[in-house]
Amino acid sequence: MRLSRFFLPILRETPKEAEIVSHRLMLRAGLVRQMSAGMYAWLPLGHIVLRKIEQIVREEQARAGAVELLMPTLQSADLWRESGRYDGYGKEMLRIQDRHERDMLYGPTNEEMITDIVRRDIKSYKDLPFTLYHIQWKFRDEIRPRFGVMRGREFLMKDAYSFDLSEEAARISYQKQFVAYLRTFGRMGLKAVPMKADPGPIGGDLSHEFIILADTGESEVFCHRDLVDMDIPGEDTDFDGDLSDIVAGRTSLYAATDEMHEPERFEAEVPEDKRLTARGIEVGHIFYFGTKYSEPMKAAVQGPEGSEVLLHGGSYGVGVSRLMGAIIEASHDDDGIIWPDAVAPFHVGLINLKSGDDATDAACDDVYAKLTNAGLDVLYDDRDERAGGKFATMDVIGLPWQLVIGPRGLKNGTVELKRRATGEKEELTIDTALNKLIG
Amino acid sequence: MRLSRFFLPILRETPKEAEIVSHRLMLRAGLVRQMSAGMYAWLPLGHIVLRKIEQIVREEQARAGAVELLMPTLQSADLWRESGRYDGYGKEMLRIQDRHERDMLYGPTNEEMITDIVRRDIKSYKDLPFTLYHIQWKFRDEIRPRFGVMRGREFLMKDAYSFDLSEEAARISYQKQFVAYLRTFGRMGLKAVPMKADPGPIGGDLSHEFIILADTGESEVFCHRDLVDMDIPGEDTDFDGDLSDIVAGRTSLYAATDEMHEPERFEAEVPEDKRLTARGIEVGHIFYFGTKYSEPMKAAVQGPEGSEVLLHGGSYGVGVSRLMGAIIEASHDDDGIIWPDAVAPFHVGLINLKSGDDATDAACDDVYAKLTNAGLDVLYDDRDERAGGKFATMDVIGLPWQLVIGPRGLKNGTVELKRRATGEKEELTIDTALNKLIG
Repeated sequence: MRLSRFFLPILRETPKEAEIVSHRLMLRAGLVRQMSAGMYAWLPLGHIVLRKIEQIVREEQARAGAVELLMPTLQSADLWRESGRYDGYGKEMLRIQDRHERDMLYGPTNEEMITDIVRRDIKSYKDLPFTLYHIQWKFRDEIRPRFGVMRGREFLMKDAYSFDLSEEAARISYQKQFVAYLRTFGRMGLKAVPMKADPGPIGGDLSHEFIILADTGESEVFCHRDLVDMDIPGEDTDFDGDLSDIVAGRTSLYAATDEMHEPERFEAEVPEDKRLTARGIEVGHIFYFGTKYSEPMKAAVQGPEGSEVLLHGGSYGVGVSRLMGAIIEASHDDDGIIWPDAVAPFHVGLINLKSGDDATDAACDDVYAKLTNAGLDVLYDDRDERAGGKFATMDVIGLPWQLVIGPRGLKNGTVELKRRATGEKEELTIDTALNKLIG
Repeated sequence: MRLSRFFLPILRETPKEAEIVSHRLMLRAGLVRQMSAGMYAWLPLGHIVLRKIEQIVREEQARAGAVELLMPTLQSADLWRESGRYDGYGKEMLRIQDRHERDMLYGPTNEEMITDIVRRDIKSYKDLPFTLYHIQWKFRDEIRPRFGVMRGREFLMKDAYSFDLSEEAARISYQKQFVAYLRTFGRMGLKAVPMKADPGPIGGDLSHEFIILADTGESEVFCHRDLVDMDIPGEDTDFDGDLSDIVAGRTSLYAATDEMHEPERFEAEVPEDKRLTARGIEVGHIFYFGTKYSEPMKAAVQGPEGSEVLLHGGSYGVGVSRLMGAIIEASHDDDGIIWPDAVAPFHVGLINLKSGDDATDAACDDVYAKLTNAGLDVLYDDRDERAGGKFATMDVIGLPWQLVIGPRGLKNGTVELKRRATGEKEELTIDTALNKLIG
């Protein structure tokens, strides 16, 4: 992508309204713009990152056997009256009336709707188990939206729903999502710790939050230090096999959010030098809630013995748009964002130090074509701007590599390659630089 | 994908509520389920098709130089008050109040919001021209939603917005989208005819609808017969070059929707044997509206001479979710859907005629692995069901190829390959069938 043809409004000033670093950097780097309180437009650069995060979520859901569908953003209030949650949900639910004065709402979550879909078409135990998910915009009318996309009102969530014949089977579905989450966050370069959590309004008796440790986190968390640096399960993990060892490897060590924290147990179970008290950002939350929705909504199948069996359910959320903020909280420096390779909007930023100079333009065009043809995503700053501004832009947007080409270096046949994360710079011939990037 | 692990609820009965063939088939083939009036959940098979349609739209927008972003579904009413459209829009606009009693709305289109984004950050003529687009859910509160996804309330639209310094430049941006649309619909196997159209509430003096001819179309259209079978512009079309000949090749022949139809001109300009009067489905609509939004919203840049210049705009819509219905209207038979290859949810349906029979299972597993490894999307019906049901399911969901493997054929070393569109069947060796599919 040539920057002259892209839409990348960089802010040189630090926006006053932004309280935390990820919010500041998302505004400065031209990733988002606020359109109303807690509602953001994702500008082109932010949109690319959002799609990369989404794609990792999708790949790991597929690996765990979950199947994607897509439910509408608006829902009928009648479904929520059926489950009994409509009156109690409070003001965070955005309630709407259509032109015929029918009560509707902007979905904050989809347990009711997916249960309705499943009960209409699934009649036999032979069709079980399955897990369905979608990645769709949700709305929660937060009284004080803040921290940018971290606590927005309109936000993108992946929510999966499992359907099983028994509690025992449902716990296996729960484990699959648990392990999928370890891989999902790990692939994004995040250290996410599963912690025992309060099920809240979703209900049920088994729930874990996946927490990124960060000073700006909204809640206090307590865990065994060893949980922070555990390896993620491999690509070859057999999701049809027994996952209980992987899950137990995490859940056997103490980890709890503040609502679930038991100080005495923490001190008894965790040696003093392993006790970690920190602030955390929730990026995922999973629940087993049994028949909480299937019972009032009569979602049942014919069981193997012929009698009706209520479906046992769980739900599994990932904050897709929030993850962008969490990744930036975890990976930045004073100059800007440092994207982990897996979610970087482009692999390489190519800087032309003298746009309009024939030799420099020709060298840049050639390198741009070679990198692009090799399948790399390149953002090519071909604008007629000063070098200082180009360097600052590249630093703030945080692409993993910067390749700098100017007339002085070209005279000696060299270009400069910079790794954004370390700041390390190398003078290389063009071919060596290309080989290093293309690998 | 193994069908035993997918979620594909097929309806054997034709649903009574569906008036047109695409709606009936989308319900029967398990593509969608209605959740409320005019609001649909996209089941896994329908979701895959939706993504394929979206991807073609995206690729052709990129080819034409448009840059993708993503705006929120909800908008502040204040923006619409600024443009002057809030009061006049009528009951199709879904109006919402949040918990602080601020007026909001579910976006039916995004001229105001994109103008707001652009005016904040774009200050100089040097940043022009550009075209931004997003693919996002919209809501129009139709009084009588019908025809399934063809006239739904919550629907997926691609809407692009161009920004230029003058009317002349804006007309070039208009031409780029015009040509992109010819390619977009053509790639989906549709014959879309651009027709002079009424700009309606978007405003402006230049507008074309892209119309698919179909008996179930909502409006009557009139055009020169030669427009229907024109070749689409090639992949190598230079969008930075002069596109006026391609556009003129279409616009010089008579084509108009009923609001814009002039019977006397039609008869004068089109020889009798070339006059085509038909019903049509609108799948795209493009507008040039000049300074209609930039003027009230004060979206201006510093021009080359230093004075302020109002931006000249156009907007360009594609009905992404509606296209699924339009494609089915154009491509089906009595047994079900016939997907054009480019949007088919899977390339091949693999039918195991005797699941549980070791030799048949082994042959199917092997073929499934080979096709998948070759990069083909395969839906493998591995269920323990009767052959008749499997055939009917494959016909109704309309994958381009069906590969049928059973114990009788395997004894002779053969399988059956069926082309869905023609019904043509061939007995082939497994290797020949694989070669034919993998190519």
